[in-house]
Amino acid sequence: MRDFFYPQSVAVVGVSPRPGNLGQGIVGNMTRFGFRGILYEVGASGGVFSGRRIYRSVSDIPDKVDLAVILTPARTVADVLQECGEKGIRRVVVETGGFREHGEEGLAHEARVVEVLRRHGMRMIGPNGLGVINAEIGLAAPFMPIEERWRPGDVSIIAQSGGVGLSLISLLAEENLGLNKFVSAGNMLDVGVEELLAYLVEDPGTKLVVLYLEGIRDGRRLMEVARRSTKPILAIKGNVGTLGKSIAASHSASLSNDDRVVDAAFRQAGIVRVRNATNLAAYIHGLRMPPMRGPNLAVLSRSGGHAVLAADSCERHGFHLSPFPPEFLRELEKHFRASVIKLTNPLDLGDLFDLEVYRKIIDQTLEQPDVHGVLFLLTYIPGIEGPAAREVLKFAGEAGRRHDKPVVLYVATSQEVLLRLKQSLEHPVWTHIELAVRSLRVSQGYLDEAPRWRRTPAPPDLTVDTAGAARLVAAAQAEGRDPYLHEAVQALACYGIPVVAGRHVHTPDEAAAAAAALGYPVAIKIVSRRISHKSDFGGVQLNLRSEQGLRQAWADMMERIAKAFPDAEVEGVLVQPMVTGGREMIVGGRRDAAFGPVVLVGMGGVFVEILREAALRVAPVDREETVRMIDELPGAAILRGARGSKPGDVDALADVILRVARFLADVPAVREVDVNPVRVFPQGEGCAALDARVILG
Amino acid sequence: MRDFFYPQSVAVVGVSPRPGNLGQGIVGNMTRFGFRGILYEVGASGGVFSGRRIYRSVSDIPDKVDLAVILTPARTVADVLQECGEKGIRRVVVETGGFREHGEEGLAHEARVVEVLRRHGMRMIGPNGLGVINAEIGLAAPFMPIEERWRPGDVSIIAQSGGVGLSLISLLAEENLGLNKFVSAGNMLDVGVEELLAYLVEDPGTKLVVLYLEGIRDGRRLMEVARRSTKPILAIKGNVGTLGKSIAASHSASLSNDDRVVDAAFRQAGIVRVRNATNLAAYIHGLRMPPMRGPNLAVLSRSGGHAVLAADSCERHGFHLSPFPPEFLRELEKHFRASVIKLTNPLDLGDLFDLEVYRKIIDQTLEQPDVHGVLFLLTYIPGIEGPAAREVLKFAGEAGRRHDKPVVLYVATSQEVLLRLKQSLEHPVWTHIELAVRSLRVSQGYLDEAPRWRRTPAPPDLTVDTAGAARLVAAAQAEGRDPYLHEAVQALACYGIPVVAGRHVHTPDEAAAAAAALGYPVAIKIVSRRISHKSDFGGVQLNLRSEQGLRQAWADMMERIAKAFPDAEVEGVLVQPMVTGGREMIVGGRRDAAFGPVVLVGMGGVFVEILREAALRVAPVDREETVRMIDELPGAAILRGARGSKPGDVDALADVILRVARFLADVPAVREVDVNPVRVFPQGEGCAALDARVILG
Repeated sequence: MRDFFYPQSVAVVGVSPRPGNLGQGIVGNMTRFGFRGILYEVGASGGVFSGRRIYRSVSDIPDKVDLAVILTPARTVADVLQECGEKGIRRVVVETGGFREHGEEGLAHEARVVEVLRRHGMRMIGPNGLGVINAEIGLAAPFMPIEERWRPGDVSIIAQSGGVGLSLISLLAEENLGLNKFVSAGNMLDVGVEELLAYLVEDPGTKLVVLYLEGIRDGRRLMEVARRSTKPILAIKGNVGTLGKSIAASHSASLSNDDRVVDAAFRQAGIVRVRNATNLAAYIHGLRMPPMRGPNLAVLSRSGGHAVLAADSCERHGFHLSPFPPEFLRELEKHFRASVIKLTNPLDLGDLFDLEVYRKIIDQTLEQPDVHGVLFLLTYIPGIEGPAAREVLKFAGEAGRRHDKPVVLYVATSQEVLLRLKQSLEHPVWTHIELAVRSLRVSQGYLDEAPRWRRTPAPPDLTVDTAGAARLVAAAQAEGRDPYLHEAVQALACYGIPVVAGRHVHTPDEAAAAAAALGYPVAIKIVSRRISHKSDFGGVQLNLRSEQGLRQAWADMMERIAKAFPDAEVEGVLVQPMVTGGREMIVGGRRDAAFGPVVLVGMGGVFVEILREAALRVAPVDREETVRMIDELPGAAILRGARGSKPGDVDALADVILRVARFLADVPAVREVDVNPVRVFPQGEGCAALDARVILG
Repeated sequence: MRDFFYPQSVAVVGVSPRPGNLGQGIVGNMTRFGFRGILYEVGASGGVFSGRRIYRSVSDIPDKVDLAVILTPARTVADVLQECGEKGIRRVVVETGGFREHGEEGLAHEARVVEVLRRHGMRMIGPNGLGVINAEIGLAAPFMPIEERWRPGDVSIIAQSGGVGLSLISLLAEENLGLNKFVSAGNMLDVGVEELLAYLVEDPGTKLVVLYLEGIRDGRRLMEVARRSTKPILAIKGNVGTLGKSIAASHSASLSNDDRVVDAAFRQAGIVRVRNATNLAAYIHGLRMPPMRGPNLAVLSRSGGHAVLAADSCERHGFHLSPFPPEFLRELEKHFRASVIKLTNPLDLGDLFDLEVYRKIIDQTLEQPDVHGVLFLLTYIPGIEGPAAREVLKFAGEAGRRHDKPVVLYVATSQEVLLRLKQSLEHPVWTHIELAVRSLRVSQGYLDEAPRWRRTPAPPDLTVDTAGAARLVAAAQAEGRDPYLHEAVQALACYGIPVVAGRHVHTPDEAAAAAAALGYPVAIKIVSRRISHKSDFGGVQLNLRSEQGLRQAWADMMERIAKAFPDAEVEGVLVQPMVTGGREMIVGGRRDAAFGPVVLVGMGGVFVEILREAALRVAPVDREETVRMIDELPGAAILRGARGSKPGDVDALADVILRVARFLADVPAVREVDVNPVRVFPQGEGCAALDARVILG
């Protein structure tokens, strides 16, 4: 990857002297940002641009070329690549659009491109992107003229949309943050986000990575790369709903992901997700400042009203405003006119007009061992106090770095003044209290969560009968169907999931015999490949207390099924002993196209209607993580024994989740598993899976 | 109130020639903003300031004075007011701090001030505020020098914090919105927010009011005023948690409110609450643009990535991106190069470089009858396309007004360019898609909700026995206690609440007789003034099926109670028939210090643990509103008959809420009512209140 970012010579292919030629934009950017290598222009028409010769082909270039940046019509790209290959160029950036995202014809172009790349062992970024930037060496390949002056710095960007990528560059400039590297990945026909990220997390120039993603292809690889990273990774994920799908497909050729899986995966891998881009600056700054190592915040404010709003915001974000210790208050008192002000946290500096004193207070506050961060709110009169205020703000930022604690600055002033402040201070300045406090929340949250994703999940060693389960699945697969209910139940039993044993029968007489053997009361359930939501159609009859009741239920069930599914082949009936008591839960798993096996757990029964939220994880998970899944459910309190009820056997439930994860991992033919309901009995009494579905994919 | 805002002559009291004198700030602001009336300076030291005589007392002023703005030490204010009164000045603004918010001494000053005001029939704004601004006539009373140039306009501000008020003025300037009037209400010793708001909603110069509140005193009056308003009222409420309380008390002498009540009251009265001030501009613009009359949004974007993010945001906010009709697409096609782009909504304008064409597309889109609003996202190169882009944006804003539909503009460009754009366009320009879309949501939401709060609630005519309930309450009150359980139950029965009838007994024999008369199974509940959470201490015994069981339960109960409450006087036992079935709900009511009677309903039983949210309203409420309360509960689906269960008798439950509201309204001694649980039976079968508490205040 390094060769994409540190070429010593670059050929821009697609330049012509004609006005409006887009290739000129690339040359313009490279020139404006002072590319330190050698630049060659190439274009079929030849001629001269900007005082330099345009070569008709890369093969005409007399020297070695490290990187070709290509912006010629889609149908010509394969040929250009062929020439590059012959010339020995091994890295290409293709900015041209009109491939996969434009349908059939584009797909054909794409196929040729892939073929040429393979033949010459070339690597490509794009097509349909804005290419790469490396601020360290003035490499600036986008064809869109970039007027924003970035300063070289340590933030790098990977964007699956050029336009959004450029907006991110603007944001950095606005926040006075330096850019290091930028990639607009385009259609990712060859190099993908995962590989680029893997490079950037190792890249010495990059300290923080911002991702804009529209579709994730190899989610597992992305997670692995992120987990290894010692640098913060922020991600904005677009294309999360149904409305954005079609435009994303035609724009960056991205397929959409299940957003709940993305959410879980990011959390598991330590990728900090920014859901509302309005907050992005708060996230970036939050992860660049000295970390907030605890919940105790000191708020210093010159305006009482702003202090009130700050206190509200701190509370919303879970910070504590601990009272200052008495000796510190005695120190503070020296700065104030006697008794005018109450010395509390937030500290109202309203009556203090000498900005010099603020420095001492800030420093003394940061010295307090129990203060983990400072929020400093400064309202001032730009003209009169402007220079002094600027110095205080500068001092506050530096004091934070000196004490290795975060200091966030809020300023109420005019836009012009603010713009100048932002551009002249190393430290971020906020105009919204909420964003300032959020940046502290991001900082503390990142520190808190880090140990979790840094630990590689080690699923416990479980005794399972893989061969047995695989046999059942293979048998169904051979008949081109999903496993029947009784087979699904058996497969899960092979994996040690405590399914309620049952007997698969075909006649009322067999059912009666089974019930007698199992003991009444029993439940009967239809077995059929066509009927998946069997309880909705009378396919489940519960609580049958006698043979007579059983036979009547059988007849009733068959009649209703015949009416609802006249064509369904009924493969018999499963007779199970009735299980009552316990809390109804749901455990499931499926194979996600991008992230592989995922598992989930949720409340069952009546709660399904009102608590649709399930806890979800990308597998593998360890025991600790499964318990965490259960505990983050909105109904966890009930399972944990709220309101005097007995605590449920959470460990047994966690075990079911682990076994479902293992089943999915071991038997690739399985696309989806539903264990619903699982009844969780009081602690120590385990749980029982009453019903199951296994779907092959 | 008008006299505060349109004085023809103003005396500023507290001016001295000494450098650092704060009164000079007031004179400076009045001068800078061109006050159109006559200005007099007054200060005990006399002398000259800024070429004008400083009178030693208002009594020395030879002419009539309409308004005095006072900034002298707190201990002198009453005397200054006395002089003002004698001079015949009837409106005063006091900016001095150091009253109630500074403890005992301040309270004494306050008492003298109130006395002088009464004596002379004067009205006062303040103390401890920044006073008033009326941009129409250049009245600018704050002592803080205001450098920000506001343009006169139609937005007015009432702030309970001067500092936050000034920040709001900055925001208006930043958003190129004009200010009309501003009041920093201070401690509101005389004139309060309610009265100021009542004036502004009638004031011809004001089209929209922004409130910043830290404590609401007369919530009912605020609601009345807001309900009458035909102008949008936006409110930021500070001091919502526990951390802000003490600082709010010492800052604006505000007491905190129950935030859930504030929330309900604002919604009921049509006050649009802005919880996160980061979104304030979106709210203001959202309520100033042509209203979004339906959910259909057309998104036009030059960048595919931004279109994807916009689609996500639209979906989150509940908008529809309906496909464009075929004839419109044929019209659109003319503007595009053939087949390059898919014509969908969002419409990708990426390949369209001629900004002129954008105007036609915007106009044609707005003409579509099914399009209720347009989101236009424009990324452009400032230098090259700047002027053309500015024209397109200007055109888009105007086109929206012409079609009376909202057009929101998102621009991705540099900060400097943006600042210039904002200052030169009448129309707001957004740099965050989320905020742009939110402004549309605010617009549509306001239109949707308006009919609801415009309708004055008309509680139904209920047959109740007020005298009976009042008698029970008075009897308890006479003994200095809350009603006993059996009295509470009777009082609610007087109000037609279907409480389960019971018998109040004192001995096991009486209990046995009562149970025999009521029929087994029964429940027994302890009656005692000291034991409020009786079920936690064995004070409730359920499901007693026989006399033997009853007597045993009695003995058991008395033993446990004696252990837990050795000193409690037991006033007997309530014997009730057991009631089973139905959904457990909770209905309650209480008298809020600021808003008066409020009612609430929530899910009961096991749901209390996980669905703590209750629906709450300020009474009176009508039947429609109570049903709405029930339906907004997270568990409403269950009550409405989800998952095949029978729908509950929602009307009967609504009736209980109405009757609790009426009870609170009729019997002022009652502070709180809890009806918990109420069992709601299937539709048509009513409900039953099983237990009740009535607390006097």
